[in-house]
Amino acid sequence: MTDWTPHTLRARSWFESLRDRICAEFENIEAEAGSAAQFEFTTWAREEAGNPEPGGGTRGVMKGQVFEKVGVNISTVHGTFAPEFAQTIHGAGADNPGFTATGISLVAHMANPHVPAVHMNTRFLTTSKPWFGGGADLNPPIPYAEDTADFHAAFQAACDTHGADYYERFKAWADEYFYIPHRGVHRGVGGIFYDHLDCDSDAAFEANFAFTRDVGEAFLAVFPRLVRRRMGAAFTAADTQQQLEWRGRYAEFNLVYDRGTLFGLKTGGNVDAILMSLPPRAVWS
Amino acid sequence: MTDWTPHTLRARSWFESLRDRICAEFENIEAEAGSAAQFEFTTWAREEAGNPEPGGGTRGVMKGQVFEKVGVNISTVHGTFAPEFAQTIHGAGADNPGFTATGISLVAHMANPHVPAVHMNTRFLTTSKPWFGGGADLNPPIPYAEDTADFHAAFQAACDTHGADYYERFKAWADEYFYIPHRGVHRGVGGIFYDHLDCDSDAAFEANFAFTRDVGEAFLAVFPRLVRRRMGAAFTAADTQQQLEWRGRYAEFNLVYDRGTLFGLKTGGNVDAILMSLPPRAVWS
Repeated sequence: MTDWTPHTLRARSWFESLRDRICAEFENIEAEAGSAAQFEFTTWAREEAGNPEPGGGTRGVMKGQVFEKVGVNISTVHGTFAPEFAQTIHGAGADNPGFTATGISLVAHMANPHVPAVHMNTRFLTTSKPWFGGGADLNPPIPYAEDTADFHAAFQAACDTHGADYYERFKAWADEYFYIPHRGVHRGVGGIFYDHLDCDSDAAFEANFAFTRDVGEAFLAVFPRLVRRRMGAAFTAADTQQQLEWRGRYAEFNLVYDRGTLFGLKTGGNVDAILMSLPPRAVWS
Repeated sequence: MTDWTPHTLRARSWFESLRDRICAEFENIEAEAGSAAQFEFTTWAREEAGNPEPGGGTRGVMKGQVFEKVGVNISTVHGTFAPEFAQTIHGAGADNPGFTATGISLVAHMANPHVPAVHMNTRFLTTSKPWFGGGADLNPPIPYAEDTADFHAAFQAACDTHGADYYERFKAWADEYFYIPHRGVHRGVGGIFYDHLDCDSDAAFEANFAFTRDVGEAFLAVFPRLVRRRMGAAFTAADTQQQLEWRGRYAEFNLVYDRGTLFGLKTGGNVDAILMSLPPRAVWS
């Protein structure tokens, strides 16, 4: 017995297949660098009172030579929101009907400061409404205009196939979201962020699901290319210091502002899965 | 011209003299370890619209051999709260009369994992009411029962002089406050935390000011003793790893839960002063 909807199960299945292909490609990159690093996977379950099927997920972590630490998580959970949270959730509100959520979440912190860190997350949620959301943003400690341009171009292509205004809207949303107000800086060089792509009909589900798949494909096409471009670059102790200070800013963003992180921490989510986004090392000078 | 009250100026003057004595003692400890490290002081000012005298403060930072990073800040500011904040502030509320605040804030992250990190902060605030608040808590990466007992005994002595129930109440408040709910652990071994010691009369001001001075004296008496007890202890790479992981938890507490940190970041405070509490290095495994 389960209460997962067919749409949730299809989305989860896609997220899992994307995870498998990303992890295989990241392991290929490690092998090209002469490393035998591989992902290690851990499953976790979250019991819900009154629900016979626990939610849960799989955390994948690899610590390699190129990827200092990369986490790729799949989680599929259902439950009810605390009342104060429900007011802030699309389609929840005062009647607070509970939720189902499935998603993939990826954060890569790279050993070489010339290689950009990256975040990618796509998800399918159901409250009184079902919708897709997601995004990806590039976080280079040492930015290169070429890398930034390629990253944006990949997501622009994915957007342009699905909505004439998608790229402009979702790039602007990323610029607004991935921002550290107390420092007056963006956390990286942006990307796309989207949410509340409502699936009020099967046709809307199919269209938004196709877009979300293309976002995943864009990530898989572009990020390994950027990694291979920079992973052999020489770097200095000063470069590493710059990287570690930059990671301090990244940790600040995630712990002070990131809605997903705070939502997870304050609703009793799996701490290891939520905080896999934090850098393996950071400094505050 | 100034709008600082005599009480604020007296409190500030005491905080500054305490700062001077603490910094001198910490520099003595460095000298005993063969280091010439000294505090470096930076002043900052915060302009307030309509107020001819800017608020501001002095940050003191020392990076030494015993003190990997210690910050001692004095800040004295006035202004008005954003309306949503005013509702949460003692004595502010809907009429939101503005505030004056002066305080000393200290966080020490130690090089040797056997030496406890520590936090101490005392402050005098005025909204429609004037009050003192403050506290101190011990944060050993590797706890020793003897250190914990001595730390608590010092603050118990300060409390017992001023109120029969102070120690019990303020120790319990520290246990409640310095807690990381998402990990289900305290951030350290506790201490005391107090707030809203109202100063509705001169006599009440004098009594609460005397208590706050004794809290500062207790800190100055006990913490250097703990540092000298452990600063020569041998430690291993595994001890350091434990310390750095523990510091990750400390950063999580400060960035996700600490009211002072979030208040400062979200009200446009001095970022360097607010975030001096963050560890110089941290890891997330």
